[in-house]
Amino acid sequence: MDVYALIIAGGVGARFWPRSREYSPKQLLEIIGKGTMIQNTVYRLDPIVPRENILIVTGAFQAEEIRRQLPQVPPENIIVEPVGRNTAPAIGLGAQILRKRAGEAMMIVLPADHLVHDIAAFQDTLRKGIAVADESRGFVTIGVTPDRPETGYGYIQFNHENHERPYAAHDGYKVVTFAEKPNLETAQLFLESGDFVWNSGMFIWRVSTILNGIVDHLPELSDELQKLDEAIDTPNWTQALEQAYNGMRPISIDYGVMEKAENRYVIPADFGWNDLGSWDEVARLFPKDECDNAASEGVFLRDVRNSHISAGGNRFTALIGVEDLIVIDTDDALLICHKGRSQEVKEVVDHLRKKGLDQYL
Amino acid sequence: MDVYALIIAGGVGARFWPRSREYSPKQLLEIIGKGTMIQNTVYRLDPIVPRENILIVTGAFQAEEIRRQLPQVPPENIIVEPVGRNTAPAIGLGAQILRKRAGEAMMIVLPADHLVHDIAAFQDTLRKGIAVADESRGFVTIGVTPDRPETGYGYIQFNHENHERPYAAHDGYKVVTFAEKPNLETAQLFLESGDFVWNSGMFIWRVSTILNGIVDHLPELSDELQKLDEAIDTPNWTQALEQAYNGMRPISIDYGVMEKAENRYVIPADFGWNDLGSWDEVARLFPKDECDNAASEGVFLRDVRNSHISAGGNRFTALIGVEDLIVIDTDDALLICHKGRSQEVKEVVDHLRKKGLDQYL
Repeated sequence: MDVYALIIAGGVGARFWPRSREYSPKQLLEIIGKGTMIQNTVYRLDPIVPRENILIVTGAFQAEEIRRQLPQVPPENIIVEPVGRNTAPAIGLGAQILRKRAGEAMMIVLPADHLVHDIAAFQDTLRKGIAVADESRGFVTIGVTPDRPETGYGYIQFNHENHERPYAAHDGYKVVTFAEKPNLETAQLFLESGDFVWNSGMFIWRVSTILNGIVDHLPELSDELQKLDEAIDTPNWTQALEQAYNGMRPISIDYGVMEKAENRYVIPADFGWNDLGSWDEVARLFPKDECDNAASEGVFLRDVRNSHISAGGNRFTALIGVEDLIVIDTDDALLICHKGRSQEVKEVVDHLRKKGLDQYL
Repeated sequence: MDVYALIIAGGVGARFWPRSREYSPKQLLEIIGKGTMIQNTVYRLDPIVPRENILIVTGAFQAEEIRRQLPQVPPENIIVEPVGRNTAPAIGLGAQILRKRAGEAMMIVLPADHLVHDIAAFQDTLRKGIAVADESRGFVTIGVTPDRPETGYGYIQFNHENHERPYAAHDGYKVVTFAEKPNLETAQLFLESGDFVWNSGMFIWRVSTILNGIVDHLPELSDELQKLDEAIDTPNWTQALEQAYNGMRPISIDYGVMEKAENRYVIPADFGWNDLGSWDEVARLFPKDECDNAASEGVFLRDVRNSHISAGGNRFTALIGVEDLIVIDTDDALLICHKGRSQEVKEVVDHLRKKGLDQYL
């Protein structure tokens, strides 16, 4: 069966202001290492999904830049949502298009803006997931083995004992439940139990499986997708899509389908995953000097500790006697944030929107 | 007797990087309130010294900007030193020019980059100083009554009892000694004694008094000034000045003359003086909001305390969860400094010089 990937590139990345902007959100930026997040998301699929089998769902602001960054992905595979409606409509749309173009197929769903450290282990996980999804005709998710009681992620509980059949050599475990972001105490229990993995937002299923799941659990969305079907790859597409999206309810695939479906499997995995949810996450991942600093080349540091400094191109930056700072300097905007507080960066974006300071968004 | 003022505008203001640059040092900037430091230095002399009686000694980098900022000061009164040689040569040069142009005159010497809060009190002090200098034919300095055991200034000890004559209604006190910057313990003793005032670097004397003082205590400088005399206001001036300065030893008027001379008087005064020696001083003087912040208009602050933020023109600046910072953002350079550490800003300037990063100097 042919394998396709649907990459969800809808986020505006407000938490990465001032580097992420409406026209260049996190997934389009080179945040760590070489290549942008979305380029690396595509590149690490190479041995599993040919680039012409990659679909990308994104917004109007970003489509052009995605085409520029990924010339090998056919332009008709870049699906521009008229407005964001969370993951269920985006995934349904991708599945509907795949069924029209390819009939039955294997479908991998991946966020465009996650970091994967061990690419071989990641690819191995996908192969296992494909085998489980193929054999079980179920909903397969990739769960990341937690190494800390993280409160920023959802968790998936799975059943070690419940191997009804030896799915693909026991790689898939039956899902017991999806758990929302826990408090620290609960996260600690999750971690100690060994029964929980982080919900990575990565899914693998047959196209028919997810479309049937939407029929069962999101019938309104299913109706809209049916209506759209005949406009796919015709000149009416853009208009039909706009009409369909107007009436759609924003809902996540987790809440809309996964939490309700039967026949759910998780592949626990450990491939050095990070969803890069904030500048603090980025700061944690950067290599540090002997004073625990990570600074752009040329930045002047005098008695500075545990700070992350990303400096702008032709500007000279100097820090004296400070610690625990995240400094993100761009051509037209500057963020100075205490470490541990970078979740609040989205407040800046809200402020800019409220004040009509669109040039900084 | 005509009253002249010599304004010393030689400093490069390295401690005010990144706002102060070689072409726009501290004295040419609007740091607090309206008007640049040197403009305010001239304006507050208005009732005492007509603007055509104001001489300014400065460096080549700054002369043009001074002419632009002070069009009312005759261009021939702006004396461009080929190289900085500390205050004694600059003051000697001014005095020599004044003798040639005006014969005997009263001469007020003022730094270009000091802040004066109470202008009426300042002018009153100058008037007293002029009277004392005129009557005593001595060296008159202005001493600022200390309100804290400051270790960053030199001190002048004076004799309350030693009124040999009722100089100008007892306004002038005999100087006992000039004391270098003290340590905190000594500064505390100075403060408690009531016998010490801060050395403001402001002087008042007859032209003949200071020239004779230079003859007595800096004979080499006196020789150079004599040689220069006939070139004053001739086409040979620039070349003669360059030659003279080549051989001159850099020395301050305090060390070269004041510490050795007899007949020294101090006028203790309290006119809200500040030499603005660092960004910390500036931060102290700015009005603060209820969280002890002073920020440029439009800066986004979230849970920020006791910080001073001077933001650049068309850039948007946001701070989250930080405290005790001094942030100076300009078009091409950024300083982030812990409060209390701004003396170290000159290390940045040294670094830029060493690295040949002249565009940021």
